[in-house]
Amino acid sequence: MSDQNDRNDRNNALGIDDLPIREELRGKSPYGAPQLDVPVQLNTNENPYPLPEPLVARIAERVAEAARGLNRYPDRDAVELRTELARYLTRTGGHPVAAENVWAANGSNEVLQQLLQAFGGPGRTAIGFEPSYSMHALIARGTGTGWLSGPRNDDFTIDVAAAEAAIAAHRPDVVFITSPNNPTGTAVGGDTVERLYAAAQAAKPSLVVVDEAYVEFSHRASLLPLLAGRPHLVVSRTMSKAFGAAGLRLGYLAAHPAVVDAVQLVRLPYHLSAVTQATALAALEHTDTLLGYVEQLKAERDRLVAELRAIGYDVTDSDANFVQFGRFADAHEAWRRILDRGVLVRDNGVPGRLRVTAGTPEENDAFLDAVRELKKEQDA
Amino acid sequence: MSDQNDRNDRNNALGIDDLPIREELRGKSPYGAPQLDVPVQLNTNENPYPLPEPLVARIAERVAEAARGLNRYPDRDAVELRTELARYLTRTGGHPVAAENVWAANGSNEVLQQLLQAFGGPGRTAIGFEPSYSMHALIARGTGTGWLSGPRNDDFTIDVAAAEAAIAAHRPDVVFITSPNNPTGTAVGGDTVERLYAAAQAAKPSLVVVDEAYVEFSHRASLLPLLAGRPHLVVSRTMSKAFGAAGLRLGYLAAHPAVVDAVQLVRLPYHLSAVTQATALAALEHTDTLLGYVEQLKAERDRLVAELRAIGYDVTDSDANFVQFGRFADAHEAWRRILDRGVLVRDNGVPGRLRVTAGTPEENDAFLDAVRELKKEQDA
Repeated sequence: MSDQNDRNDRNNALGIDDLPIREELRGKSPYGAPQLDVPVQLNTNENPYPLPEPLVARIAERVAEAARGLNRYPDRDAVELRTELARYLTRTGGHPVAAENVWAANGSNEVLQQLLQAFGGPGRTAIGFEPSYSMHALIARGTGTGWLSGPRNDDFTIDVAAAEAAIAAHRPDVVFITSPNNPTGTAVGGDTVERLYAAAQAAKPSLVVVDEAYVEFSHRASLLPLLAGRPHLVVSRTMSKAFGAAGLRLGYLAAHPAVVDAVQLVRLPYHLSAVTQATALAALEHTDTLLGYVEQLKAERDRLVAELRAIGYDVTDSDANFVQFGRFADAHEAWRRILDRGVLVRDNGVPGRLRVTAGTPEENDAFLDAVRELKKEQDA
Repeated sequence: MSDQNDRNDRNNALGIDDLPIREELRGKSPYGAPQLDVPVQLNTNENPYPLPEPLVARIAERVAEAARGLNRYPDRDAVELRTELARYLTRTGGHPVAAENVWAANGSNEVLQQLLQAFGGPGRTAIGFEPSYSMHALIARGTGTGWLSGPRNDDFTIDVAAAEAAIAAHRPDVVFITSPNNPTGTAVGGDTVERLYAAAQAAKPSLVVVDEAYVEFSHRASLLPLLAGRPHLVVSRTMSKAFGAAGLRLGYLAAHPAVVDAVQLVRLPYHLSAVTQATALAALEHTDTLLGYVEQLKAERDRLVAELRAIGYDVTDSDANFVQFGRFADAHEAWRRILDRGVLVRDNGVPGRLRVTAGTPEENDAFLDAVRELKKEQDA
């Protein structure tokens, strides 16, 4: 059979479900936002500011240096990178951490996957409070971990008493707390994490993962100081948002050194390439410049919240670089009508709500124009 | 608790086994060759030739271009890269493949992990014919897939009749065939793959993965043409060895498009960074130069085989960029004595044997001097 015939096979409808794949994958589609070619893309919480040219030059320089040794395997333990990430967390997170407290992988998704491989997996369960970052449930599925959907209040804050009850009843092995939460933008207070950590440990020794992917955009401080005295607590982070490096795929965590050791039992050896390590190190050299963009985006996020409310939308308080707004009788129809005006936002499946990423002032203006028109039509 | 206290905790022996990790991970150590600072490192099958400077410059150029868009997520489907990998396979593999037949990930380890997540996993089993690449069993464990160790003949070729019987008896969901095999260097004939594929399909519909990480160094042609008419066959590859890019972590596979679709159900979204894609594309532009180094290494490999035999060692035929030799009453003691002479080889745990990577002519001379002395001592 030639390649032509392979393709004919496809036409002849040999599909995924004809393969001996796992039963639970049958009929599923790959995760991912629609990738549409639209002038204003505010759908994936990317940072709209390209890296500054001096940083681009520094990346080229450090990658060239790494490329000269590319025939060798990378530093398997990424010690230099973990040292610099620890320095960044210590400087900005209100809690001192060292390289031995830090682990890095290809995106926070891989960090979470490794945590679930070590602490979740077949015969174990994880809980998240939904709506939340949908990859938590998907990575649980991918690692054979059972998934429990915990409750939220109507304002999208965590219903702490109900969460404690759910933890006591189901005794999950891993608890996910997302702060700020995606897609709602809701920050979680330290007191909530303290209570849920205590509840989780009372139910059984279990891992509590605070996903702080968007924390640099928050009005509140990082929950990193809660690591003190809590060896089963993990804080996960990413360079995708605050560092404007979604294309880099660099996620990391801070935790007790024993957690870092445990993750190394399941990580694929040499999982983090020399070019990824070099690029991340270059970006970390430019932290102050990149955090300057974060300040601009926080101001734009606050403007979006205020203007959306002024237009008459119901807006969830946001501590992230995105804003959840509604309500719509038909959120998907509203999504489509905003798209018709050249602006791509995200329909995360939260009934009656959509999510918009804070872009540049011009992008946000285009978005606000679109939803202002939409509001007029809907009120007409 | 301060960071200082966290570290004290460690000193106070809060270790992995005090954490709620999975039972089967208790007492395990992370996979990985010892990383020792030795003049001649011939232990991890790296390509000894650094990338040529024009390629380093091209990598810097393409990465800078990618870095200008690093605030955006990478191409989730890596279409340009898969197109170029398909072109390379079509040109060198004796079988035409298109982008839709190809999938890429962070090292062939991640490719294999994704295959096991989709086709293996809890309640399923995989078989390999050992000694072979030990990551197959480890990735099986990491994905909850049961592992079966199949037999080899005394000369390290696959015992086909015994393998067929093992497949019929155990009905595995995934069959690994490594050609050339690591750590023995043994190539597998197409007839063997045909028979094992047929046996596997007769037992139950199952995936057969031919791991061709080292195939560019083989005296034999790639097994890629066997994909024709075998929708459950996968050929996995890497840029770590022939492309001299172990630091890049770029593995890939060729298979029926439905297999590529299936892997996309379990891959982490945006798993492959924009810098990895850019670097791999730059390396593929320099394929001919890099394959020139492969020819030099094949000649050195053949020289190692001949000289080791002339010295009096028992040497396994090699189609890879490494050579298995022995026999030693105590292989680990022999490993240590070669290390004492400044040459690091690999003790893979195959009784009485060690593995040496083909390095530069100078490195290989240093190795041959060391084992010549060792032989004299042992014969004395």
